[in-house]
Amino acid sequence: MHHLGADAIERAWQILDQIPGRATGAYSHSQGIKGLRDTIAAGIEARDGFPADPNDIFLTDGASPAVHMMMQLLIRSEKDGILCPIPQYPLYSASIALHGGTLVPYYLDEATGWGLEVSELKKQLEDTKSKGITPRAVVVINPGNPTGQVLAEDNQRGIVEFCKQEGLILLADEVYQENVYVPEKKFHSFKKVARSMGYGEKDVSIVSFQSVSKGYYGECGKRGGYMEVTGFGPEIREQIYKVASVNLCSNISGQILASLVMSPPKVGDESYESYYAEKDGILSSLMRRAKTLEDAFNNLEGVTCNKAEGAMYLFPCIRLPEKAIKAAEAAKTAPDNFYCRRLLNATGIVFVPGSGFGQIPGTWHFRCTILPQEDKIPAVVSRLTEFHKSFMEEFRD
Amino acid sequence: MHHLGADAIERAWQILDQIPGRATGAYSHSQGIKGLRDTIAAGIEARDGFPADPNDIFLTDGASPAVHMMMQLLIRSEKDGILCPIPQYPLYSASIALHGGTLVPYYLDEATGWGLEVSELKKQLEDTKSKGITPRAVVVINPGNPTGQVLAEDNQRGIVEFCKQEGLILLADEVYQENVYVPEKKFHSFKKVARSMGYGEKDVSIVSFQSVSKGYYGECGKRGGYMEVTGFGPEIREQIYKVASVNLCSNISGQILASLVMSPPKVGDESYESYYAEKDGILSSLMRRAKTLEDAFNNLEGVTCNKAEGAMYLFPCIRLPEKAIKAAEAAKTAPDNFYCRRLLNATGIVFVPGSGFGQIPGTWHFRCTILPQEDKIPAVVSRLTEFHKSFMEEFRD
Repeated sequence: MHHLGADAIERAWQILDQIPGRATGAYSHSQGIKGLRDTIAAGIEARDGFPADPNDIFLTDGASPAVHMMMQLLIRSEKDGILCPIPQYPLYSASIALHGGTLVPYYLDEATGWGLEVSELKKQLEDTKSKGITPRAVVVINPGNPTGQVLAEDNQRGIVEFCKQEGLILLADEVYQENVYVPEKKFHSFKKVARSMGYGEKDVSIVSFQSVSKGYYGECGKRGGYMEVTGFGPEIREQIYKVASVNLCSNISGQILASLVMSPPKVGDESYESYYAEKDGILSSLMRRAKTLEDAFNNLEGVTCNKAEGAMYLFPCIRLPEKAIKAAEAAKTAPDNFYCRRLLNATGIVFVPGSGFGQIPGTWHFRCTILPQEDKIPAVVSRLTEFHKSFMEEFRD
Repeated sequence: MHHLGADAIERAWQILDQIPGRATGAYSHSQGIKGLRDTIAAGIEARDGFPADPNDIFLTDGASPAVHMMMQLLIRSEKDGILCPIPQYPLYSASIALHGGTLVPYYLDEATGWGLEVSELKKQLEDTKSKGITPRAVVVINPGNPTGQVLAEDNQRGIVEFCKQEGLILLADEVYQENVYVPEKKFHSFKKVARSMGYGEKDVSIVSFQSVSKGYYGECGKRGGYMEVTGFGPEIREQIYKVASVNLCSNISGQILASLVMSPPKVGDESYESYYAEKDGILSSLMRRAKTLEDAFNNLEGVTCNKAEGAMYLFPCIRLPEKAIKAAEAAKTAPDNFYCRRLLNATGIVFVPGSGFGQIPGTWHFRCTILPQEDKIPAVVSRLTEFHKSFMEEFRD
């Protein structure tokens, strides 16, 4: 049983007052309830130190429908290209395929902690143009999924500059903004970075995606999220609104949660201490889990794993013995698939093969979440280690 | 304050037991929680008297995303045609346009109470084929939106037969299934009609859309709904599942509501009497409102209105004086738009112009919902009547 603080009760009344009819059962404005968008805009301002406009906010049933909406608007035919990181969260490849566009891969550099090199973006952009494909937008996932890196601010500046110069829309997947686990890195929204460079509405178009499914809240079943759309003229804004209105509105409970995520209790509020303790407890635990798993991977023969800086994943590289690659071939499956399937059958542990996210041809990876309960992690590590040893014994060249 | 019946409390526990982790905060299976799909399938069986398979149910954030999903799967290019009623709920025209297909109109016959003539379907189908367009599916909205008619069962049989013979998928928008207001008509699902004709899985493909936003419940802000997908082979089923999984899952509260809509309290349950009283109260009130508005429209000069058989709308035809049509032209707007705008400014009453739904060229209509509070209807009628008189005086030829 929770004791509800006076601030929580007051907040509930405030939210009810913001909803016409004081109930969650009616359709809302297609961008979401205005009062909730005000709260979110204020939250963005508090986070970034730059103004945010509630009319730039589109509340959605999680971040995925927001991504689809933008892809629908950006892609006219297979001649339109969207630059996507490889490895990438497969929502992007799926959405680009569904809307008939072309995914233009740019590779994250594993050797520099899954760094995002602007030179690589430029190279792929030129290559794309030479094929007669029109680049429309760049997807950046920060913190990274499945790669777990957090971009450095000067790297972000380079990306913003690149988008500005090339006239590309920056689709910023920032759903893991609360999930940063290393003291030397901090989350900066791309909009904040652009504004701090002196770039305003007219200079660069940025869409930031946020969700209630990640962070320390993780309320993914509620399907709440929003996108903040900046740097578009009124005509395009009208088209975005038109597409948003086709499905009438996103679910009201999810809308409310999205507003709460962007306006947590403040110092001095009755709920603050218990809120902070819970948030800190969850995030520190995720940090410890990430570190334990990272170390465990780096102790496995043939496995190397970058630092778990953020998000909820590790994406270690595994050098598989030639014999294992041959065995996978015989089993008509990819080597990373083969390894993960063997692991699943032997231990019940689920890793997602790197093939699902994309990887440099000839390299093999898998994605591991840091979400198992903390007290179960040691057992996971020992089962994994044991499995890996016997797998390597079996297939050693 | 409501007293919760023992059955309601038991139901809440049952639902919690059906959800892994007993909480609504986690992602579910991409088709929706299995236990809830079981409940929905049982509800369909009870409604139709024919078996329903929980694996045929895809829970969605309202009916709109389900319609988009099917359009996405059916439309490959502008050479693919979807037969749509005119007038139609504009979700269909929007979805077909967004997915790059061709809307093939078939006209509902206003003279026979917005009847759906199979001869008209055949005519439009032939016309479409002759233009090199491949017809893929037929949309039928029953009860009708914006037209408010309820199809007769033998008419439905003709439509099923047509779809079977032509190999067309029947997209059955059945979201108003609880909204039938005349004793001589009854809602029959297209699947029930097909099964009662002896047609099974292999004979005809039917997708039935249902929502928590209509009926006597009207919980549209919750974004709950489902589609029941029958008559497709395993390969196509897999593709539907793939598209459903791109957005992970629909919101869990909406999923729960969808299961409740399809399994209301039964005779003997403690809640039954209060449930029935509330349901009956709402539906009888809607019936009275529909009748009052229908009569009011038929009393207006130049206006004729079909019987309000179902759904939540009336779609009267208005013969506008030549002078009004000229005035609309001068104001650079459609005549029905002109009338509705005048009405809005003079009275605050909102009608949606027929142009938004499609109508036979040269005819003019508007859609009026039957949703204003019952005690406000007489005032609405008298303001409308007064406005209409003065409008006709002003523009009489």
